[in-house]
Amino acid sequence: MTRRDAMIRRLQAIVPDEAILRRPEELKPYECDGLTAYRRVPWLVVLPEHESQLVRILKLCHDEKVPLVVRGAGTGLSGGALPLEEGLLVSLARFDRILELDPLGRTARVQPGVRNLAISGAARPHGLYYAPDPSSQIACSIGGNVAENAGGIHCLKYGLTVHNVIALRCLTMEGETVILGSAGLDGPGYDLLALVHGSEGLLAVVTEITVRLLPLPGCTRTLLAAFSTVAAAADAVAAVIEAGLIPAAMEMMDRPAIVAVEDYLQAGYPREAAALVICELDGPEAQVEAEAAAARRQFERHGAFRVQVAQDEAERQRFWQGRKSAFPAIGRITPDYYCMDGTIPRHRVAEVLAGIARLADKYGLRVANVFHAGDGNLHPLIMYDAAAGELEKVERLGREILELCVQVGGTITGEHGVGVEKLDSMCRQFGEGELRLFHAVKQAFDPRGLLNPGKAVPTLARCAELGGMHVHQGRLPHPELVRF
Amino acid sequence: MTRRDAMIRRLQAIVPDEAILRRPEELKPYECDGLTAYRRVPWLVVLPEHESQLVRILKLCHDEKVPLVVRGAGTGLSGGALPLEEGLLVSLARFDRILELDPLGRTARVQPGVRNLAISGAARPHGLYYAPDPSSQIACSIGGNVAENAGGIHCLKYGLTVHNVIALRCLTMEGETVILGSAGLDGPGYDLLALVHGSEGLLAVVTEITVRLLPLPGCTRTLLAAFSTVAAAADAVAAVIEAGLIPAAMEMMDRPAIVAVEDYLQAGYPREAAALVICELDGPEAQVEAEAAAARRQFERHGAFRVQVAQDEAERQRFWQGRKSAFPAIGRITPDYYCMDGTIPRHRVAEVLAGIARLADKYGLRVANVFHAGDGNLHPLIMYDAAAGELEKVERLGREILELCVQVGGTITGEHGVGVEKLDSMCRQFGEGELRLFHAVKQAFDPRGLLNPGKAVPTLARCAELGGMHVHQGRLPHPELVRF
Repeated sequence: MTRRDAMIRRLQAIVPDEAILRRPEELKPYECDGLTAYRRVPWLVVLPEHESQLVRILKLCHDEKVPLVVRGAGTGLSGGALPLEEGLLVSLARFDRILELDPLGRTARVQPGVRNLAISGAARPHGLYYAPDPSSQIACSIGGNVAENAGGIHCLKYGLTVHNVIALRCLTMEGETVILGSAGLDGPGYDLLALVHGSEGLLAVVTEITVRLLPLPGCTRTLLAAFSTVAAAADAVAAVIEAGLIPAAMEMMDRPAIVAVEDYLQAGYPREAAALVICELDGPEAQVEAEAAAARRQFERHGAFRVQVAQDEAERQRFWQGRKSAFPAIGRITPDYYCMDGTIPRHRVAEVLAGIARLADKYGLRVANVFHAGDGNLHPLIMYDAAAGELEKVERLGREILELCVQVGGTITGEHGVGVEKLDSMCRQFGEGELRLFHAVKQAFDPRGLLNPGKAVPTLARCAELGGMHVHQGRLPHPELVRF
Repeated sequence: MTRRDAMIRRLQAIVPDEAILRRPEELKPYECDGLTAYRRVPWLVVLPEHESQLVRILKLCHDEKVPLVVRGAGTGLSGGALPLEEGLLVSLARFDRILELDPLGRTARVQPGVRNLAISGAARPHGLYYAPDPSSQIACSIGGNVAENAGGIHCLKYGLTVHNVIALRCLTMEGETVILGSAGLDGPGYDLLALVHGSEGLLAVVTEITVRLLPLPGCTRTLLAAFSTVAAAADAVAAVIEAGLIPAAMEMMDRPAIVAVEDYLQAGYPREAAALVICELDGPEAQVEAEAAAARRQFERHGAFRVQVAQDEAERQRFWQGRKSAFPAIGRITPDYYCMDGTIPRHRVAEVLAGIARLADKYGLRVANVFHAGDGNLHPLIMYDAAAGELEKVERLGREILELCVQVGGTITGEHGVGVEKLDSMCRQFGEGELRLFHAVKQAFDPRGLLNPGKAVPTLARCAELGGMHVHQGRLPHPELVRF
């Protein structure tokens, strides 16, 4: 009997036979996540339905030293759910129940397979919603959001997943239950709740998530501002924040993105603009009106040649439609594109965009930018033709762009995670000391290294092979710094 | 030569002789922190001035297996800086420089011994400030704030220390430098930045802190609302938040506290009130006016018999003066008092205050309440007479109050930390699984257990002796829960 057959037999004692996928046509849909460039047909897929089954699966894998990958909805963009050659793929798709909703305490306790948008759906009758809104929110699961510490358009005001989750029920690799966080403000003990967020499935398996719900905003105003230079738009974004405003969202697109969108669906964006900013304010009406007026003043002061305020919900949807369709719009005009995800300090957006343009010229590639300007999370889309053998060049450009982000004090990923895609860039972001601590923390949670091995944190040897690690997050000297 | 003399000789090779305190009169000031009930004269105190000295001290302690306690300003309230019988006390008082202030990026990079308020002082000429404001902010150091993840009156709107720090430079116990966090939004790798916050000096030694600065608010409005029952005040606080407002601060005091304050300094609080709420709103003027009107409506709707808006800065200061003097005011009317620090879900304040009153009656002790109502952080002050042998009774009442907090889903400490004081309560808050993970994480950072041993996390044996650990953060059934 093969090792795989033996595992099937052991799993049959834990879950019904139909919950164990083993035939090629059953396994195929699980060969990749949202990053389709990396694929591997899984060894075996198992779909448990109850926590008690999951405990037994974990104990089995622990005893047998079989590694496993836990998968949510498979919408991740860095290959974090890529299957293993010889290990289980555990799908939490059947953990799809909202267990409890507390309108007074404004929390919901849900299973990890619940879709992000389904939480807001259940909360809506109580005038509440769940704030973080990744673009994939119609499909992505809350468990995956925790694993990647997902953001979204509205995270400028409402924070990332970690800021909207108050407690997690988790299983360790040994199958032990732990509860992290509480309904209180700041818990005692080490902040393992924050630690598990964004840990990309390497530390523990989350089985319940208690999220914070917010009241639906009384009023929303959406502004569209057009600029004739990218620098002016970036300065205007910085000025809005400097004026003390915290928009619910503040997005930016450059001309290549604007033109692609207009060609695709005629959102009414001005084609002559070098950059567009979409700024949304929400809250009580009097406050929103005051803030919208203040934001408009900043846009005009920084040279916007057109500022429109959406007059009704239909126009607001049109403003957003263009932004939200930017990726498919780019997809129409290029055989392939590669979406980057770096973050930088907000006030350095203009400078970094100029740097990206220079790098794109150097490689002879086109880049469109569509991004969360308010929090400095860039998404350069590199257009290329894989069939023409351009992929390797694209990857080099991508790495240089991420190194530029690190140089100005930023990071190699904002919200998409490291997964398998950015392992090498991790060597640029971190030095030996940090990597050693990461491995020690992993060891604390999963001494046998069975949870999602080979993802998120490169080995020291891999970084050494790449030619050594970078200096600690080097900062370029800022002329504007006040030194003491 | 004693072990201590040998250590002095080794330290003399690292720091100037005057930086090694060894005589009883030199050591005495370091025998306790803000929790004066626990005292121990240190073995030796060393005051390094440069990071390179600190690295050598850590390596020395690591090699010689000498434990150490790192101390900030000594204002902590849970005994976290209590010295060891045979170990170094390392004071970071000389790490008192603001290294860099970036008005455009709105960050300041500072050493750990810098006083909290000094950061805002340096930022003020640029129209900026550092938001977290623990009551001790005139004296406490930013390094201590990181160790305890300090809050303050304004953390309702602006968050805890962890939400206002973007990067830390740390030394591991082996003297290696690591940099956690970045100027970007969400970093890759495990969130060790959050993990170090609130770790009470057990994981690493922080040598530089990069904090976020905020623009000084354009406008501030402060309301004082008086209620004839505690329940009405608690409901009003919940209603303000439910209305979608996020006040900069929302504090509450009950009658014993009000009367003590009025007897002390005549703040103008209505003595007939059962509870007072002080609510402060800040931001751009139009927004603040709108919010203040909305808050006033909620107070009136929930039965406030008097709502005053401070007409000028002098009156605003008077409103706050009473709140800020509440602890010394209580100190005047009782030989001793014990300040608790539990957090609970905001909407359960009324119920928990009633429970505290019942418990106080049971023990025949008086309790005054002065607390951060907006974020559910309670500070019951138990009044007693140590000379009359009441301490043991007070400690029992204190434990019962904290257990009540845990029962409703809260925690045993909001902002004061665990230190030596709340080790036993940690056994009530956490089960074996969580404690085991805490110890594993500690092991990952400090395998020899030399950093601040005996604090913050109890051993499993200690909890077992206490009669077993509690069930996971038991929740009482809420009648208002929507179950699916």
